[in-house]
Amino acid sequence: MTAREEQESAIGFEAWSHERARHFEWAAESMMPRPGAGPKRLIGAMRYAVLGGGKRIRPLLCYAAGVISGADEAVLDRAALALEMIHSYSLVHDDMPSMDNDTLRRGRPTCHVQYGEALAMLAGDALQAEAFTVISAPQVPAETAARLTQTLARAAGVWGMCGGQALDLAMVGEHPGEAELLRMQAMKTGAMILASVLMGAQAGCWEKLGDGAKAGLVQYAQSLGVAFQVVDDILDCTQDTKTLGKTAGKDEKDDKPTWVSLLGLEGARERAENLEREALQALQLVEADREVPEAGAQRLREIALYVVRRTH
Amino acid sequence: MTAREEQESAIGFEAWSHERARHFEWAAESMMPRPGAGPKRLIGAMRYAVLGGGKRIRPLLCYAAGVISGADEAVLDRAALALEMIHSYSLVHDDMPSMDNDTLRRGRPTCHVQYGEALAMLAGDALQAEAFTVISAPQVPAETAARLTQTLARAAGVWGMCGGQALDLAMVGEHPGEAELLRMQAMKTGAMILASVLMGAQAGCWEKLGDGAKAGLVQYAQSLGVAFQVVDDILDCTQDTKTLGKTAGKDEKDDKPTWVSLLGLEGARERAENLEREALQALQLVEADREVPEAGAQRLREIALYVVRRTH
Repeated sequence: MTAREEQESAIGFEAWSHERARHFEWAAESMMPRPGAGPKRLIGAMRYAVLGGGKRIRPLLCYAAGVISGADEAVLDRAALALEMIHSYSLVHDDMPSMDNDTLRRGRPTCHVQYGEALAMLAGDALQAEAFTVISAPQVPAETAARLTQTLARAAGVWGMCGGQALDLAMVGEHPGEAELLRMQAMKTGAMILASVLMGAQAGCWEKLGDGAKAGLVQYAQSLGVAFQVVDDILDCTQDTKTLGKTAGKDEKDDKPTWVSLLGLEGARERAENLEREALQALQLVEADREVPEAGAQRLREIALYVVRRTH
Repeated sequence: MTAREEQESAIGFEAWSHERARHFEWAAESMMPRPGAGPKRLIGAMRYAVLGGGKRIRPLLCYAAGVISGADEAVLDRAALALEMIHSYSLVHDDMPSMDNDTLRRGRPTCHVQYGEALAMLAGDALQAEAFTVISAPQVPAETAARLTQTLARAAGVWGMCGGQALDLAMVGEHPGEAELLRMQAMKTGAMILASVLMGAQAGCWEKLGDGAKAGLVQYAQSLGVAFQVVDDILDCTQDTKTLGKTAGKDEKDDKPTWVSLLGLEGARERAENLEREALQALQLVEADREVPEAGAQRLREIALYVVRRTH
């Protein structure tokens, strides 16, 4: 892209991502459990955890990948909400005293500070269950529901998010090399980024996509996942708490291994740029598939640029 | 049944339930994640939580209900394991200090005592995810996978187990009436008992069953669910810790409402007998369906007798 094309694309992306984020808030708000006759405080805690904002990267990836397979918006809404419910529950549990013991998240008190530990744990547990309720509802075709469930469950479990979190716990105070850090993060955060892209595409005509396009999507998501983490580490040590909406400089204080401690600040920045390039190249494989609409990967491309260049 | 028929049935049931429990241990052992290259301690904690024995009531119900719809054993194994993973994760989380703070379960130290709080929370989280991985695997027909996922997720979530647990937390120190206790328990434990029966039937030809049979299964499971809880409360105040394998007399000490505190010991025993009768009557509706094999509900009938008459 020329500098001008890049600027125009950035404007188009900003409008698209704002519209999608607004749409997602509406869809999440209307599909999330409501208090009323139910367990009010539990539902309150769940809504507090999910509806409290956040960058909504996973829903955006899901919507963007849905373009590739012509996915139905109503199914994408469900996939996007399920992804964000799993992501939000993991934040609630990670913030608890027995884990990271953090008190600030998205610029507000963390869930256990607001609702107490017992209810925060339960809210996380219930969010995970409701994520699977949402994607397996009768409104979703059975083939799609089974595929979305399998993808999300694998990403959330032992070989994905939870397993990565366990490896991360085991690493505190250790000095892991690049390979170990990569592997831990590929599970802890990478698996859910990959699931976001896959679920978007699986919400539509997944079976029509060729192996090349599928491999391209996986490669894109993997590069993006690492880039996301590298940039997070850079921001954690260059931005303040107010800008981030969460406690800054925490990784260093907790003696956690980061990309900055491993490669230095400049090295980390270089690495992020290389990963961005890899992600964009992978999308060429996707667009080479004749089932994929012309410029069908445009939003995924823009998300990669946004993720690497964001400032919070 | 005559006394003699009842005795013969009890012998047949004992053999069947032992064989099923052994088979389940084998299936669970072989399908559960194994350490190796993965997050070893996490997987260790998950296996500790699930493979540590227990009454296996939910798997037994699932296998028994599978007879009704001619379900495939391999699919039943998956449904049974998923149910037990969800049940086990809920015990791990409930035992933690911020909830019931219990140190003994199934005659051994609870998971957080053995592995620490952070890992126990993560093991519970990962068990929930793996439960959905197991039932949505490509080996399960998509229609069945979607139906099992929906049933399990609803039973585990806000309107089921987690919601009931939240209502239970809110009741400590209160003096709820019978209706409130019923409602809380129908969610906290009843929903998963119902799911066990439904998932067993849904693992086979669910769509061939008539509305009468389906309603009969629901009624059976609901009566059984309450009976289970009433008997648990009776045992909690009449048996010692060693016999139960968990801390006895705990509900009374924690000032938790129970069926014994509400109805007295004799009243609770009478209630359990009435519920047993209701459960058995409901099975007549099931066996009246011409798609259900002759005496197809026999094992479910025997489980009801076992649940009400057990001593631990």
